[in-house]
Amino acid sequence: MSSINLIHFVEHLVTVGPAPETWVEQFSATQAKRHSTGILERMSLMDVLLGKPLASEEDSEQRIGVTTGVPTFGLDALGSAAYGPEAALTILIPAAAAGIAYVMPISLIIILLLAVVYFSYRQTIDAYPRGGGSYTVASENLGQNLGLLAAAALMLDYLLDVGVGISTGVGALVSAVPSFAPHTLAICLFILLLLTLISLRGVRENGLVYTVPTYLFVVCLLGVLGWGTAKVMLHGGHAAPVVMPPAPEHAVAAISAWLLIRAFASGCTALTGVEAVSNGVMAFREPTSQNARRTLAVIVTLLAIFLAGIAHLTRAYGIMATDPGGKNYQSLLSMITAAVAGKGVVYYVTIGSILVLLSLSANTAFADFPRLCRAIAEDGYLPRFFAIRGRRLVYHEGILVLAVLSAVILTVFGGVTDRLIPLFAIGAFSAFTLSQAGMVMHWRREGGPRSKLYMAINLVGAIATGLTTVVVLVAKFVEGAWITVLLIPVLIVMMKGVNRHYRRVSAETTIHQIELQPLARPVAVLPVAAWTRASEAALQFACMLSGDVRVLHVECSDEVGEETAKDWQGQLDTAAAKHSLRPPQVVRVQSPFRFITSPILKYVADILASNPEQRVAVVVPELVASHWYEYLLHNHRSTALKGLLLLQGTRGVVVINVPWYLHR
Amino acid sequence: MSSINLIHFVEHLVTVGPAPETWVEQFSATQAKRHSTGILERMSLMDVLLGKPLASEEDSEQRIGVTTGVPTFGLDALGSAAYGPEAALTILIPAAAAGIAYVMPISLIIILLLAVVYFSYRQTIDAYPRGGGSYTVASENLGQNLGLLAAAALMLDYLLDVGVGISTGVGALVSAVPSFAPHTLAICLFILLLLTLISLRGVRENGLVYTVPTYLFVVCLLGVLGWGTAKVMLHGGHAAPVVMPPAPEHAVAAISAWLLIRAFASGCTALTGVEAVSNGVMAFREPTSQNARRTLAVIVTLLAIFLAGIAHLTRAYGIMATDPGGKNYQSLLSMITAAVAGKGVVYYVTIGSILVLLSLSANTAFADFPRLCRAIAEDGYLPRFFAIRGRRLVYHEGILVLAVLSAVILTVFGGVTDRLIPLFAIGAFSAFTLSQAGMVMHWRREGGPRSKLYMAINLVGAIATGLTTVVVLVAKFVEGAWITVLLIPVLIVMMKGVNRHYRRVSAETTIHQIELQPLARPVAVLPVAAWTRASEAALQFACMLSGDVRVLHVECSDEVGEETAKDWQGQLDTAAAKHSLRPPQVVRVQSPFRFITSPILKYVADILASNPEQRVAVVVPELVASHWYEYLLHNHRSTALKGLLLLQGTRGVVVINVPWYLHR
Repeated sequence: MSSINLIHFVEHLVTVGPAPETWVEQFSATQAKRHSTGILERMSLMDVLLGKPLASEEDSEQRIGVTTGVPTFGLDALGSAAYGPEAALTILIPAAAAGIAYVMPISLIIILLLAVVYFSYRQTIDAYPRGGGSYTVASENLGQNLGLLAAAALMLDYLLDVGVGISTGVGALVSAVPSFAPHTLAICLFILLLLTLISLRGVRENGLVYTVPTYLFVVCLLGVLGWGTAKVMLHGGHAAPVVMPPAPEHAVAAISAWLLIRAFASGCTALTGVEAVSNGVMAFREPTSQNARRTLAVIVTLLAIFLAGIAHLTRAYGIMATDPGGKNYQSLLSMITAAVAGKGVVYYVTIGSILVLLSLSANTAFADFPRLCRAIAEDGYLPRFFAIRGRRLVYHEGILVLAVLSAVILTVFGGVTDRLIPLFAIGAFSAFTLSQAGMVMHWRREGGPRSKLYMAINLVGAIATGLTTVVVLVAKFVEGAWITVLLIPVLIVMMKGVNRHYRRVSAETTIHQIELQPLARPVAVLPVAAWTRASEAALQFACMLSGDVRVLHVECSDEVGEETAKDWQGQLDTAAAKHSLRPPQVVRVQSPFRFITSPILKYVADILASNPEQRVAVVVPELVASHWYEYLLHNHRSTALKGLLLLQGTRGVVVINVPWYLHR
Repeated sequence: MSSINLIHFVEHLVTVGPAPETWVEQFSATQAKRHSTGILERMSLMDVLLGKPLASEEDSEQRIGVTTGVPTFGLDALGSAAYGPEAALTILIPAAAAGIAYVMPISLIIILLLAVVYFSYRQTIDAYPRGGGSYTVASENLGQNLGLLAAAALMLDYLLDVGVGISTGVGALVSAVPSFAPHTLAICLFILLLLTLISLRGVRENGLVYTVPTYLFVVCLLGVLGWGTAKVMLHGGHAAPVVMPPAPEHAVAAISAWLLIRAFASGCTALTGVEAVSNGVMAFREPTSQNARRTLAVIVTLLAIFLAGIAHLTRAYGIMATDPGGKNYQSLLSMITAAVAGKGVVYYVTIGSILVLLSLSANTAFADFPRLCRAIAEDGYLPRFFAIRGRRLVYHEGILVLAVLSAVILTVFGGVTDRLIPLFAIGAFSAFTLSQAGMVMHWRREGGPRSKLYMAINLVGAIATGLTTVVVLVAKFVEGAWITVLLIPVLIVMMKGVNRHYRRVSAETTIHQIELQPLARPVAVLPVAAWTRASEAALQFACMLSGDVRVLHVECSDEVGEETAKDWQGQLDTAAAKHSLRPPQVVRVQSPFRFITSPILKYVADILASNPEQRVAVVVPELVASHWYEYLLHNHRSTALKGLLLLQGTRGVVVINVPWYLHR
């Protein structure tokens, strides 16, 4: 790797910014894109993977409309139609056929909740055109603490979303093609990598990539549900299934309120992902709010139709869920599709599109998690790098952090995350509740002609989602929701710690007026093991800087001794005399344990201890090689020394690096 | 981790030296040991694992005598008694009972070869009291190229030695306790870790640790062989085995010269490890050479007795080797021991001691490989760090490199290294040959009363081992010896490359007389994102250093713009006027792609391009936090900038770090 490439690579790694496309200053972004220099071609791997860097000015070109907005922010919500109703029905298995009767009422309640959430977020989008996720709304209207609660809940929700989303899709794939089973984790991680790379390529490309699978899924599912509903209506409500679904088992439990509540709580997972648009308003093109609102409307309408259609056909065909752990497991949508269309081409295309959509549904988390983190980081509750836009104008760090954490979760659970599902909906519903409670306060403060009405809508929403949160929490507490309850405060404490740090740093370092105190010349300390051109160059800089130069020689054995020191001193005296400089002074330091760095640190500390006003400049000569492998052949004492001098922590020390370039 | 601990940790990592036990200069080592400060206690994990640092003066206390020398340098040679004869016999399996008759002659030739090698190394030890391994002898007497050939051969030999040694021992263990089988690799790596840690603790402790297993093995094997021989003699040459060994299969091949040659070649693995003492002469206490010679004599005598005894009992009991890959595999020593002593306590103790010894036989490589690398590194053909003695006065880096490479080999082969065995003896025998050829030249040059005799001995040795090398090479070429033949030149080319680099660097940087050219003041460039105390401190240093200070502000968006720059310039003008300094100049640089580092590099490069005589000092303010996790909250642009400024490679640039300490 040439050093220029290395520069770009390191800049990319460290500043999370893009590789520099051009050195030219004052260069308009679009011009730069066309005039990209040779440097660019050399960074082609990065370019191929992530796309060429985008200039800040190109932001507007990256914005999206409704058509791309639905795949970008709606995958999660739409995909949840594939598991929400099934999750509710699974709880009802013990009640067998009696349970099927309750699918419709439960679904209707969920759709009602969906409508309430929709109206609420619609208003949020209007009120917060820069992006008004639950975090923003809650922290602005209910105080920072409740804002952080919403943030922590959502962060956990998204994190689980990625793991569960990918592993659900892959799980379905593996049950279809069992020979993939040994590679479950590998496939999960591969999809994760793919999602990460696509997300890093920017909002626009992201939406474009997901357009085909999303609309294929929508068309297939709408088709199957519509066809089935038509058939049922033509046959007066009781169509004969093309492929007979497995008959429900005998009932082993009666319908009870607790069973229904648990079924409802499980079904509520269908609502996760609905909040995504509200965080991402800024990603839409002008008119921003309107585009965002329309996207949300499309997503919610489709989801409502899916939920209603699934519930209707489930009852019409008398389909019961099958045990997800059992041998004869079939997904609800698989049974419905087979009942409506038989196991032909339509079946396989539909089921295929569902699998693909589920595997990719984690994309919503990738679109929204970084935006959420940015909002929190801008308020100083997460590291600042979350708010830096990378090479493709997306919030790189958030994407990478999400990817790494998800990879850890997937690896720990071996790609099978069933046990995480109970943890799931709580985060989303807590966030819903806080967001709507926040909007209530917002309208109360805002006033205006229709604020009473809006306030009422949000109040209903807050109460409904609040109750649902409690129901989900109680119903799922033992199954694992307690983990969420435990993790959320931990996250909040961490975020507050981050904020405390930033405030402390700011208090310590902020200045209001630049002051200049003339400084006295420092003592220059120059560690020398043996005289080379590199140490000579450093010596010359030291002599320019200071009249008091100490050449420090660390002696590990008695072999190098007094004579060497005398010889050096003699040479230095002669050289200094030629230019009538004060001669540098050779200082010997013994090191019985063969340490090199520590005696130097000790020497510097001693100078500062004897005179706290004194400043010490340690001049470190450094060989710079032209190939990375050459570094294997030299020790890295100068790097260590620089790092340790800084860490040692005395304000009087300044470290000066004088490089010497090999082979140039 | 406090910053003091971090200093020690980094020093340990980077300089491969020990953690500093004390800051006190001119401190005698033994005193230091007793007066260890609080710093030491805090580094307790390192101390527990590796022992407290040893002062250079303590070297003599670390030296060993014959008793400890045998376990340190003899494990490999002694352990090879357990596989050498068996390897020969295994080749003879197709000849069945007819083959057994040839065990004795083959063993006698090998013992003769051993005697020749012994006399040769005995002389080498006398001639090279600072350590005269094959590398040293060959390079001094036959030229550097043949020296490097010996070095490469030995390095490969030792590397294979570790992998094969450990996996042979563990393989035997696993065949005894099959439930361990799934953990083969883990057990191998664990033993490797153990060997590494013990080696890092220093020569003396190493010898002490291995004393018990070594002597237990020697006593057991001598006992069994002696008992068996006595029994056989009492019964006139035909004792009845206590446990009948499996009868040899029917012969499927006649005895042929080729079969015997291959058997001999395989049996020669018994001689690997004999050269170890000659490299490690310096590890012995005074009288150094005499102790080394005696150690070698003990090792060789024991090995010869083992080989003779095993051959004798094999024939007396009519024992044939069993197929190593077969279901009924039993090791030769297991069958002999069972035949002599039955399967009682003696059997299990003996077999147990053999297993332990085999697993640990890699220790010889750990003792010798670092010494070999040190010798090569001192001649400039390997990175210099191989010649640095670490915390316990051993050559740390060699140990670590050997451990890492062995771990890679073990992991790649899953802990089963059967396929590596054919590669094995070639390295050792090439080294033997070169060493003895070198000694022939040595005596020729040296002259003296008995030099003719010595020369004759070495010549015989060189011819014998040379022929053996050819035999082994031919017999094993197809089985894998070609890999060795391929790898050795690669290693030689690498070592020559290293040497070329060092010579080039030395030519470029060596000076004979220190010169001092007075330097003009540099332009000081100070990158500032926002004014903080850190940047103010850097500004003050910059103003002290130079009359031409440029405050560089990189603008990523249009929001921060002209006004900010004007405000800064105003403040700077005021501050400078107060002390009648030339005011620093604010420079704005646009960065449409949001890069920070690259525009700074570009600005510096431009200054240098317009005036090649000019020097530029880039003053980098740096926040230093007191806890490592705080670094997660700040970007590392200053680190990146420093690194990239150095790599950019223009001689006129000097990097100055002005730290600002948080929370202090």
